[in-house]
Amino acid sequence: MKGKIFGIGVGPGDPQLMTIKACRILEKVDIVCVPKSKHEKDSLALSIAGRAVDREFETLELLFPMTHDKEVLKRHWDEAAERMAQQAREGKSLAFITIGDPMFYSTYAYILERIKRNYTDIEIETVPGITAFSACSSFINEPLTEADENLAVIPAAYGIPAIREALETNDNVVLMKVNRLYDEVAVLLKEMNLLNNAVYISRCGYEDQFYSTDIEGMTGREKDYMSIMIIRKAGWKSL
Amino acid sequence: MKGKIFGIGVGPGDPQLMTIKACRILEKVDIVCVPKSKHEKDSLALSIAGRAVDREFETLELLFPMTHDKEVLKRHWDEAAERMAQQAREGKSLAFITIGDPMFYSTYAYILERIKRNYTDIEIETVPGITAFSACSSFINEPLTEADENLAVIPAAYGIPAIREALETNDNVVLMKVNRLYDEVAVLLKEMNLLNNAVYISRCGYEDQFYSTDIEGMTGREKDYMSIMIIRKAGWKSL
Repeated sequence: MKGKIFGIGVGPGDPQLMTIKACRILEKVDIVCVPKSKHEKDSLALSIAGRAVDREFETLELLFPMTHDKEVLKRHWDEAAERMAQQAREGKSLAFITIGDPMFYSTYAYILERIKRNYTDIEIETVPGITAFSACSSFINEPLTEADENLAVIPAAYGIPAIREALETNDNVVLMKVNRLYDEVAVLLKEMNLLNNAVYISRCGYEDQFYSTDIEGMTGREKDYMSIMIIRKAGWKSL
Repeated sequence: MKGKIFGIGVGPGDPQLMTIKACRILEKVDIVCVPKSKHEKDSLALSIAGRAVDREFETLELLFPMTHDKEVLKRHWDEAAERMAQQAREGKSLAFITIGDPMFYSTYAYILERIKRNYTDIEIETVPGITAFSACSSFINEPLTEADENLAVIPAAYGIPAIREALETNDNVVLMKVNRLYDEVAVLLKEMNLLNNAVYISRCGYEDQFYSTDIEGMTGREKDYMSIMIIRKAGWKSL
């Protein structure tokens, strides 16, 4: 696997939820590319991979600042893709690691796009990972979809009107990163008479994973970034 | 793990896409419960598990006939749950294996519900698996969702009007098991000017996995049961 780039989903947090394929690649790869929002911050993805695979990684730290400024973001995506491509052209194999699934709200998508467009001589392969919402539904031991039910997955950045529409038109709704909008979502759910159909889950796959069906009782409290809400119109079987 | 039941997602087809956790449980468990629609049929889930884990399984075959008759289905779910509970009460550990993710359109949901309701002394734990749509987006090497895009997952049984509504109100749409409705979906996509935004994927994770963006050209042909369509309104990066 010389001169090749892999995009690797390390799953939601529990290293045991990594795939065999992800582990086998990380056991052999020359360089592990670690996306970070700040240089001094620890990487969640790296700590997951490091607990699943018993070796020292040579890492390449890639900085993606938390900003909505498209020009700043593009510059960092371009730079990361170029740095990775350079190493691949020198014959190195690289794995870009990402929490959850690489094709699902991950910075990896922008790297993938650039490698495919600008570095057509370099092979890039993606390895899927367990998504946060799959891990959450297993953790609460409640099905996400049954029979002919559908599912909508909404990033919380979408805002309350879009969340209302999703709740009106779908059987099951997952709200990703619900922390910032939580209090407004709770008001909406009360208004729509859906308070008993929702569950809040945070840090799923970590030792301090947590869930609650007391949606109103949780308002006003500080929430972790890794937080999801699942709304199931048919109701829970046993929550 | 005596007297315990596990629900195990074996992922979409490639045994390497099983999680470490799924493999570790299957290496130790006393009985592997194998859902089948007919007694004489081979089990896909069992063949995936058997290629990932190097041991002979003691299996318990559970029959779930392909029917929409709710009474017949309930009788088979009840019977399967009872047979599993009996073994667990004798101190055996059991793993119910299922393709993809156990919480996502799986018969496992009905077993889980029954164990939790009728056999409250028996512990049941669910282990998530890679979903078909995650595997498909990695296979075609195109992101499923980016930035503030949302995603709708629709079982094809939903019918054309629901699919039209999903396409109107969402950025990205996954149609599960699209085989039966394929030709009607192709007509709808043409009408909605979305033919170039769709990709058809079949048997993802198997040796004969296949994808095509020639949606019209594929009409009229026989389709595999394991078939998905992804529609991405923002368009593909490189398909």
